Amino acid sequence: MSLETKALLFDVFGTVVDWRTSVLAELQAFFGARGVERDWGRFALDWRALYQPAMEAVRSGARDYSNLDVLHRENLLTLLRRYDLPALDAAEVWHLTTAWHRLAPWPDSAPGLARLRESRIVASLSNGNIALMVNLSRHGGLVWDTILGAEIARAYKPDPRVYLRAAEALGLAPDQCMMVAAHNDDLRAARALGMGTAFVLRASEYGPGQTTDLGAEEAWDIVTDSLTGVADALD
Amino acid sequence: MSLETKALLFDVFGTVVDWRTSVLAELQAFFGARGVERDWGRFALDWRALYQPAMEAVRSGARDYSNLDVLHRENLLTLLRRYDLPALDAAEVWHLTTAWHRLAPWPDSAPGLARLRESRIVASLSNGNIALMVNLSRHGGLVWDTILGAEIARAYKPDPRVYLRAAEALGLAPDQCMMVAAHNDDLRAARALGMGTAFVLRASEYGPGQTTDLGAEEAWDIVTDSLTGVADALD
Repeated sequence: MSLETKALLFDVFGTVVDWRTSVLAELQAFFGARGVERDWGRFALDWRALYQPAMEAVRSGARDYSNLDVLHRENLLTLLRRYDLPALDAAEVWHLTTAWHRLAPWPDSAPGLARLRESRIVASLSNGNIALMVNLSRHGGLVWDTILGAEIARAYKPDPRVYLRAAEALGLAPDQCMMVAAHNDDLRAARALGMGTAFVLRASEYGPGQTTDLGAEEAWDIVTDSLTGVADALD
Repeated sequence: MSLETKALLFDVFGTVVDWRTSVLAELQAFFGARGVERDWGRFALDWRALYQPAMEAVRSGARDYSNLDVLHRENLLTLLRRYDLPALDAAEVWHLTTAWHRLAPWPDSAPGLARLRESRIVASLSNGNIALMVNLSRHGGLVWDTILGAEIARAYKPDPRVYLRAAEALGLAPDQCMMVAAHNDDLRAARALGMGTAFVLRASEYGPGQTTDLGAEEAWDIVTDSLTGVADALD
């Protein structure tokens, strides 16, 4: 398998970056400076929880493709009301929306990616839009050969078009690609199309109360807990 | 100007890589091993010359978007007949077609790009497709924040959609972007949309007989002869 794997495609939120800790810190800093207190840890989880239904509206065809910055902003406005927060101006709303452009990588991510890139194409395959991925990657010192994913396909994972469009863009067959993700659902979608699969356990993605993706639910090609672990397995 | 330039968008063929010398070497090696002699320098120029009319068919709407690998392959087949060359099998035709994936950068390109990337987003904005750009960049040690260009827009430069789609993908206004190119036409199209412009003189792109793009035809924001020169001008 590994010798034929020409490209590694990465889920990013949770797999490569620790969105929860980063978003929590941004919320604490922003509202702390304004003397406003709420349960920001819960706010961060609620923000993330609105992500799936927002994308589902696109997947189902109920709305045209809108990029993740647009969805994050809408969901933020929903939560500002739900948490009874003071009105923010447009620049403040955008500043908070782009907290998702400033997420910190897990400690193994940048060195793991750099090692993997020595022998194979590495590309992001995230539901995040290109601008978000570019900014996040520069922020965290992540180097990709290119950014693929939702915006290229104008669809959201696990829509098969997102995975197939990525392979096509690289001039590769699906079985020459391996999906790397901390989420079993993402790997199931990739495997159904013939891609290789690497599961990266991120047991604290959702914080101490995490109940999902605490283990490999199928016999994935690689099971590990870091991107350096993926590199070890492929060596 | 320079402080507001958040992203540098690069033409690649001629500006970043020396396609003529590389394609010539590939043709000489391939046919030399088969004992076939022709004027390979002229063949390389003829191959490049078929590039514009092939793209024009897409620009005019006469054919749907087809990526540059497809166009390069068709044009190669045309030239194999024109030069009365022996029949090649599909793998050989593909090997030669992907000579365009193995172009050598000009000596200043990799270090210049690396310097520019320290302070600004760098993205390719080529008519080449994503697979071609990924392979060429890995071959030449070129590091981009992402690959944009024709395939993202499903159109070919100088169609304004290619430039505008790139700025949009980065979440930037056109005047926050600067086009870097060895071709005055490319810069004219970018400036018409409000982008900054950097002209990089590549006086030997077409070999010793070059007659075009031997100087800046307008007062571009930067005029230089290397990517390190662009970095110097922006510092």
